[in-house]
Amino acid sequence: MLAKGTSDYTPEEKILRNKIVHTIQHLFERYGFAPLETATLERLETLTAKYAGGDEIIKEIYKLTDQGKRDLGLRYDLTVPLARYVGENPNIKMPFKRYEIGKVFRDGPIKAGRMREFWQCDGDVIGASSMLADAELLKLAHDVFTQLNMDVVIKVNNRKLLNGIMSAAGITQNKDGAILSLDKIEKFGAAAVKKELNEKCFDDTQINEVLKLTTIKGSNESIIKKLEPLINDSEGEQGIKEIRELLHFLKLFNTNVELDISLARGLAYYTGTIYEVYLKSGTITSSLAAGGRWDTMIGKFLKTEKPYPAVGISFGLEPITAALKSQTQKSVTKVYIVPINTLDQSIITLQKFRSEGVTADIDLVGRSPGKNMNHADVYGIPFAVFIGEAEMSAGKVKLKELKTGKEILVTVEQAIDIVKKN
Amino acid sequence: MLAKGTSDYTPEEKILRNKIVHTIQHLFERYGFAPLETATLERLETLTAKYAGGDEIIKEIYKLTDQGKRDLGLRYDLTVPLARYVGENPNIKMPFKRYEIGKVFRDGPIKAGRMREFWQCDGDVIGASSMLADAELLKLAHDVFTQLNMDVVIKVNNRKLLNGIMSAAGITQNKDGAILSLDKIEKFGAAAVKKELNEKCFDDTQINEVLKLTTIKGSNESIIKKLEPLINDSEGEQGIKEIRELLHFLKLFNTNVELDISLARGLAYYTGTIYEVYLKSGTITSSLAAGGRWDTMIGKFLKTEKPYPAVGISFGLEPITAALKSQTQKSVTKVYIVPINTLDQSIITLQKFRSEGVTADIDLVGRSPGKNMNHADVYGIPFAVFIGEAEMSAGKVKLKELKTGKEILVTVEQAIDIVKKN
Repeated sequence: MLAKGTSDYTPEEKILRNKIVHTIQHLFERYGFAPLETATLERLETLTAKYAGGDEIIKEIYKLTDQGKRDLGLRYDLTVPLARYVGENPNIKMPFKRYEIGKVFRDGPIKAGRMREFWQCDGDVIGASSMLADAELLKLAHDVFTQLNMDVVIKVNNRKLLNGIMSAAGITQNKDGAILSLDKIEKFGAAAVKKELNEKCFDDTQINEVLKLTTIKGSNESIIKKLEPLINDSEGEQGIKEIRELLHFLKLFNTNVELDISLARGLAYYTGTIYEVYLKSGTITSSLAAGGRWDTMIGKFLKTEKPYPAVGISFGLEPITAALKSQTQKSVTKVYIVPINTLDQSIITLQKFRSEGVTADIDLVGRSPGKNMNHADVYGIPFAVFIGEAEMSAGKVKLKELKTGKEILVTVEQAIDIVKKN
Repeated sequence: MLAKGTSDYTPEEKILRNKIVHTIQHLFERYGFAPLETATLERLETLTAKYAGGDEIIKEIYKLTDQGKRDLGLRYDLTVPLARYVGENPNIKMPFKRYEIGKVFRDGPIKAGRMREFWQCDGDVIGASSMLADAELLKLAHDVFTQLNMDVVIKVNNRKLLNGIMSAAGITQNKDGAILSLDKIEKFGAAAVKKELNEKCFDDTQINEVLKLTTIKGSNESIIKKLEPLINDSEGEQGIKEIRELLHFLKLFNTNVELDISLARGLAYYTGTIYEVYLKSGTITSSLAAGGRWDTMIGKFLKTEKPYPAVGISFGLEPITAALKSQTQKSVTKVYIVPINTLDQSIITLQKFRSEGVTADIDLVGRSPGKNMNHADVYGIPFAVFIGEAEMSAGKVKLKELKTGKEILVTVEQAIDIVKKN
């Protein structure tokens, strides 16, 4: 029996997951991100350090000890191990662009799409403050979803601008609290946000002003133009400047994004650009990828004055898999070889398919042709090749396409060509 | 700080590991093995079940509990989870060919090449007794090492034949004990094996006979011919028959193996064919891949009379990586773009490289050309592209090959062609 909160991925599920992971991996590399693999087991004190995960996450650490009684934990994300890695490798040449795709563990409540062990697919640029790094990540996300044939919208905001908006609304205390409430506007509506802000002791003038400012609609440029004269502090001005730079680079990258001033996310962490990627339509409403700039965490974590500006993206393997469920493929095998009293010759034929790069399999248990067809059918293998004595002496094989039931007598080379084209 | 017995893999190491893993994965799929992913956390009772890992391994389980006080453990191999998976999915169509590549954990002593978390790369065929399945796995191993440019020898033996040899030498009790000692002959020599067999209370006649029989040398066929008349029980005869069949299929697959009658390995487990793959020469003397037939474990583990014949192979990522260390590549990036007051135009050029599938990166921090060259050099990026205003107005870029220092003025399209060919 499986342990609670874990799951196996059947071949059918794993084929799709591999396809998604390979797409992400391939594009990370094309964009100059190097692969990194950090340890799964970490010292507990690393995982629970100040500025590592927040209290909520630390509660969910799986704790264990080794035979030497050392306190360990299973990593709950790939960011803390990255910060540790950067600290332990002071000679890394900056900027350092790395991606890591690996399993993380959280001993928390289980709900749909939320297991206790799951994969994260993260890419981060460390050591570059330029908005070009942020823009590159969004272009990369754009490419990933284009390759996966998913129609998405990329929503962008900036934490400094959000702080500036709070100032403009007269909020100078507990900006984080106000932003955290604001983050719920998409999900729960303006009335709920108002109520929560009230409970947090913001006054009605402030609340109405925040809601007015953060619900400005229009083109990206028109939103910025409307906001710009209202912003009255340097942090907000810096936010405007960063967004303009980001949009400029994204234009060069031919990547459309939607400026969404109410977008907040992950406050403890983010310091500048933030973004989330959603499907334009469909039943999957959670974000497919998200991230942003986190310029201060590594420095704080490593207790150093040395600056470690950073910006990253995390692809959500679970929602992407859920969204692509219809693309499921049952088997990696393209051809199933059925020997009919011709085992030796069939093995040689099998070998020809494989050496041409065609994924091919053969009956291993000497079944009847009918039972073999059932096997190919259950596994969703698109082609079968029958090799009987008659075919063999004619130098041919019988190629059957399972979907149509169509059978043709062809040479092995012809069969290989046909399968390759399908 | 890293936890004891764990390690990070730097980009340089991970690039090589990825290359090896992709080769193995790719060939597993070409041979009709489907990917499977089982859970990392297992119920402790699954991991410690009778017929799961042996006592030695069970001692090394990392144990933990979740917040619901459930007893869990980190998996120590991919075989026990596979057996559990087969039990939980009774509708799997047999034969079931799956591979799994994943991390496993053992809280044991640390030595060179033996960490507390490491990867296993396993492929198994379940539900087929034919030696064709065994032969396929050896051909697959042959292909993996050919693709990785490694000159290897595949050593083969058969557990039934070994038992038959014991009978022929007059050993009817504690055959496993005798075989276990015999397994050390390659490493420690005949004298040490003799001594150990003596301590296990085998008499000198038996010992001399065993050593005589298991050190028969010659071609595969001549070894079989010499052994065949000496074998006097049906198990040994079955072993001879299986080896003959295996060699027949391997001949059709054009795969050479070396019959080594003293090869024993993993006794608790194996029931027929066994094999190990070694480098023909070099400093890595441990096996690079190994496996065999384990026809009874799944049935015993699942407490069922239903037969689950199985044969598998496990590739050792650690020794293969160690053997290929000289092939290390520092970066995935092929081209590094250096803008010289031409950032916008450089971004458009960068994009051209990437859209042609070339892994490309760009200066993100506005450094001088000299510092950028140092960056490319540290990361081992083979080409740099300088884009200055003069080049730009001539519609060209300056392409520099770092190894030779050679610079040429070419169009972007020409530069892409040159980089692609390298």
